[in-house]
Amino acid sequence: MTDAAAWTLDPRLEADSIPLGDLPLSRVLLMNDANYPWLILVPRRPNLVELIDLDDSGQATLMIEIARAARALKETAACDKLNVASLGNTVRQLHVHVIARRNGDPAGAAPVWGAVAARPYPAAERERLGGALRDALGLG
Amino acid sequence: MTDAAAWTLDPRLEADSIPLGDLPLSRVLLMNDANYPWLILVPRRPNLVELIDLDDSGQATLMIEIARAARALKETAACDKLNVASLGNTVRQLHVHVIARRNGDPAGAAPVWGAVAARPYPAAERERLGGALRDALGLG
Repeated sequence: MTDAAAWTLDPRLEADSIPLGDLPLSRVLLMNDANYPWLILVPRRPNLVELIDLDDSGQATLMIEIARAARALKETAACDKLNVASLGNTVRQLHVHVIARRNGDPAGAAPVWGAVAARPYPAAERERLGGALRDALGLG
Repeated sequence: MTDAAAWTLDPRLEADSIPLGDLPLSRVLLMNDANYPWLILVPRRPNLVELIDLDDSGQATLMIEIARAARALKETAACDKLNVASLGNTVRQLHVHVIARRNGDPAGAAPVWGAVAARPYPAAERERLGGALRDALGLG
């Protein structure tokens, strides 16, 4: 069995998000929370918890994909600041949040985690934003 | 004036931390908060706000330095999970948090920002941990 075959997405990440497609290393998810345009990158290799569980080449690729996700959000969504984070306090599978923050969004100057309840996208908005992000990410 | 000469550390980051030394790209700070072993990397180039304000080479170097900080924390401090984040919601100068989280620490399953008030290190503990981290980072 190859590494790619052995990898499966954490069920909690899967339940909270819409899959947009795969970059060379990472699956790209759109968090189903209309409070913030919010991507999650999940490297498709099994048993990763920490960034430093990736080898040097994987770390370099992940940084390239983080930058790609950040640029896609800036192009697609109004955005005053980007937040990039790998925390893993609740879901241990390695994943990186890339979040477009706007002045006046529900979390204000605080981090988004736990700030307010997620607000699922209406179907039309989910389709529109998901499509625009897929295009900006080159996943179209 | 070179870029390096024009860079200055944000005064708020400076006030909240102890400088440990300079890696090729980043100044390394120890947050003066004994609740969590907590490093901050600040790339020493002026006018950076977002990760994607760094050129590709700078992004790659920053990832290498993040991994180095992460390994130094794991070697030096008891640690159940690492948190890595570039947020910038309050201090806009680009900086990356690398934080050693422990089961039962004051923030629990939440992110550390805003969880509890910072608890400054006693001088002896600051010297001990700062020295151990400098050694682990190769800044000794």
